[in-house]
Amino acid sequence: MAEAGDYVAVVSPSTPPGPGRPGGGELGGGTQASQRLLAYSDALLSIIATVMILPVAHTKIHPDQKLGESVQQLLATKIAVYLMTFLIVTVAWAAHVRLFQVIELIDDVLALLNLACMMLITFLPYTFSLMASFPDVPFGIFMFSSCSVVIGTIQAIIVVYGFHHPYLLSHQIQESENQAFYKNHILKIILRGPTLSFFAAIVSFFFIPLAYVFLGLVIFFPHVSHLTKWFKSKVLGQEDEVPLESFTSYLTEPLSKERVEAFSDGVYAIVATLLILDICEDNVPDAKEVREKYRGNLINALSEYGPNFLAYFGSFVTIGLLWFVHHSLFLHVTKATRLMGLLNTLSLAFIGGLPLAYQLTSEFAEKSHNETEAIQVSCVTIFFASIFQFGIWTAALFHERETLHPFARYGGKEHALMFAKLALYPCASLAAFFLTCVVSELSTEIFHLMQIVVPFAFLVLRIFVRVGLVALKFLFRPRKNVSEEEEACLSPSETLS
Amino acid sequence: MAEAGDYVAVVSPSTPPGPGRPGGGELGGGTQASQRLLAYSDALLSIIATVMILPVAHTKIHPDQKLGESVQQLLATKIAVYLMTFLIVTVAWAAHVRLFQVIELIDDVLALLNLACMMLITFLPYTFSLMASFPDVPFGIFMFSSCSVVIGTIQAIIVVYGFHHPYLLSHQIQESENQAFYKNHILKIILRGPTLSFFAAIVSFFFIPLAYVFLGLVIFFPHVSHLTKWFKSKVLGQEDEVPLESFTSYLTEPLSKERVEAFSDGVYAIVATLLILDICEDNVPDAKEVREKYRGNLINALSEYGPNFLAYFGSFVTIGLLWFVHHSLFLHVTKATRLMGLLNTLSLAFIGGLPLAYQLTSEFAEKSHNETEAIQVSCVTIFFASIFQFGIWTAALFHERETLHPFARYGGKEHALMFAKLALYPCASLAAFFLTCVVSELSTEIFHLMQIVVPFAFLVLRIFVRVGLVALKFLFRPRKNVSEEEEACLSPSETLS
Repeated sequence: MAEAGDYVAVVSPSTPPGPGRPGGGELGGGTQASQRLLAYSDALLSIIATVMILPVAHTKIHPDQKLGESVQQLLATKIAVYLMTFLIVTVAWAAHVRLFQVIELIDDVLALLNLACMMLITFLPYTFSLMASFPDVPFGIFMFSSCSVVIGTIQAIIVVYGFHHPYLLSHQIQESENQAFYKNHILKIILRGPTLSFFAAIVSFFFIPLAYVFLGLVIFFPHVSHLTKWFKSKVLGQEDEVPLESFTSYLTEPLSKERVEAFSDGVYAIVATLLILDICEDNVPDAKEVREKYRGNLINALSEYGPNFLAYFGSFVTIGLLWFVHHSLFLHVTKATRLMGLLNTLSLAFIGGLPLAYQLTSEFAEKSHNETEAIQVSCVTIFFASIFQFGIWTAALFHERETLHPFARYGGKEHALMFAKLALYPCASLAAFFLTCVVSELSTEIFHLMQIVVPFAFLVLRIFVRVGLVALKFLFRPRKNVSEEEEACLSPSETLS
Repeated sequence: MAEAGDYVAVVSPSTPPGPGRPGGGELGGGTQASQRLLAYSDALLSIIATVMILPVAHTKIHPDQKLGESVQQLLATKIAVYLMTFLIVTVAWAAHVRLFQVIELIDDVLALLNLACMMLITFLPYTFSLMASFPDVPFGIFMFSSCSVVIGTIQAIIVVYGFHHPYLLSHQIQESENQAFYKNHILKIILRGPTLSFFAAIVSFFFIPLAYVFLGLVIFFPHVSHLTKWFKSKVLGQEDEVPLESFTSYLTEPLSKERVEAFSDGVYAIVATLLILDICEDNVPDAKEVREKYRGNLINALSEYGPNFLAYFGSFVTIGLLWFVHHSLFLHVTKATRLMGLLNTLSLAFIGGLPLAYQLTSEFAEKSHNETEAIQVSCVTIFFASIFQFGIWTAALFHERETLHPFARYGGKEHALMFAKLALYPCASLAAFFLTCVVSELSTEIFHLMQIVVPFAFLVLRIFVRVGLVALKFLFRPRKNVSEEEEACLSPSETLS
């Protein structure tokens, strides 16, 4: 490693890389901007996080079985595997984001090291499946932990390599006199997970539950430590300014907005694609069957799949619009705090569950009892996916000066519209859920037609919001001190426009 | 549509969007930069293009059958579906790129229209599967063509909407006096495919083969017309300057480099992920089987899957390095011509075939005759994927002043290294192929080990190139007029450094 690395430095002594070099990508002497490497890593990580829903969705549920029991069976192992994989990959992704906030330029050695790292991260879901299938055998935990340790080692090598070639580092660190401090700090952050996994690997041979505790710590430690800090500052008094300082400090700034967007895009894209994959594998009629059963009439054969197509379009519309809401939200976000990152991860985890919901609703069409439950599972999934999106927005409003664009803050002219956009899906899914309880005959067809109608709601939302604001203005004009949220965003917008 | 659109314009008369607005994303009044929409579209399109390899890879091949026959069976329908889907989606993607080179800003209406367009594009593979399963039924062609017509209609609406709100257009067109000309030109490009499909849909009820000819035209017409133009200019004389003019003209500039990269990244990422998906679905041993067959010894049970893991790591390394080569290449590319785009598409189509190669080599381990053929299929796939990459480079060198960074041109200091990087995989895969012919006993294990060793070749490539250049310099110094390519890039690099 070190040889090849030194060599890169030797080859290019005549062209020290500098900011004023032409051509965005190539900086001479094998040094390159890292955007595309990061975009590729984001795509890989988001897909690997989400794709593990497929084994869940493809679990064959016996038609005679009641869905309630089968869902419980599924819940036991496969959904757990999916959720844990998703969270673990997200933790690995967050570490990766941190790492490449420090190292801004790459060369061939770093690119190859990063690929090796990616290879091991994509292998994590497999080790996790092993763990879930054989929870009482230490070997699964051992494999998972070793993978994690090797990933940590490679990332540590990347850090050491980066600090050995300071021109690769971010400008801020390059100019700082305290490079050694930064190096130790970032190493500490990156090696935290692998160290815990290392202990888990050793402990796994003696006492397995303790090993699981260690692994749980890997996932939740960063979030828990941040949350306790946050709650402490809130409980001990209104020290709003203290945690905010940390946002402006470079190394504790949690996630770059671009990479959160790229990761989210990957998840939404793969989820939308998994749907059509199922359609293509399951719903192309067999040539022989068409000839014998439908006398060669393809249209009749296809009409049997009608509900599946409806389910496909309904689900695609839902995923597309949830992406649209996410997109609208992040247009207004200027900086993503750690809490917003966590809420985004949770939202994405439920988005990843949508193929399962699709599978259920398309499979249990026309089977009265299961049908209702399938719709309920869909509603719950959509509700949580959208309510966590709403949570991102709420979290952003807490520190709106740092995190939000002026248009979207309280009183901004886009505030009310944003609120309406984010509230649409939680309300709609809740309404659909309660409809299934009241109307016992609600069919999946009606549900999917409802899904397909929603985009038109988005199109007329601006008009609704405008009318609503005018109505509110009219209603509340006499009383001046109104504290309602709608009013808060109304009156200053009046002064703005 | 027009109502909501007008409304957007009405809401924001007080904030006309301009270039000097703060905050990259939000431009006020619902107008937004389109980067993320495009990134999401690229991700969706690249995944949908590639994911259709899964039905091919999952086709069960009977172990007793000879692979040769099964491959022929596969070739007949499923590989054809995969390749045609890939090419059709690529055509749709190219039209999409063109479209959003004209429209640079978006608002909510455009975002929703684009999502509708995406939904129909992701549905194309299904209609194509129908066509492949029922080649003699007009309904498949009819569905495909109608989808294509609707996509064209939506894209035309986007264009009309864009020209109706000129602040959404690209700066160059906004300032041009000839907007009507641009509008007609872009509409012509976008509606070419759908018009052909429309004729195909009508003709399909009378004479099916002619319908297929029309559909073939959709895919190949733009490339063929460009190639004939190019050959004509080459054959009629060295009019190098005439075709180059078209590259500088705005509307005929074929593809934006960023979107070619994003699309390619999506393909590489999904291919790498499909591998681990297979591992997770097929290679987690059954708990009951482990208990009965291996007396609860998980490690023994897993050791049976050893070859699969080796195949996984080998394939991942290959895909990762092919991405790495692509990444290195596009760092040096400043502009992608249409020919380069076509070669890139072909390279990606073979990259998409790698999961099939993986499936074959991991399934036919230890079955002597099939094993050799599986390795040969892998070698051929890798060879074509990498030789088309090499083709991109060659095509770029034809117009190196427009397409390449100075470092990578003839005589640039990175030229020789780039050449070596691009030549490595074609040479290695050819060598492996001929090895299978000579050494009858070459096992998949050795093949995958070879794959895993390749990254080290990349690491020492710089040293090899350096040594090679010095050796060449030493050998050829007495004779001054040497025309070999290696020499051509050596001597100026000598003068540079």
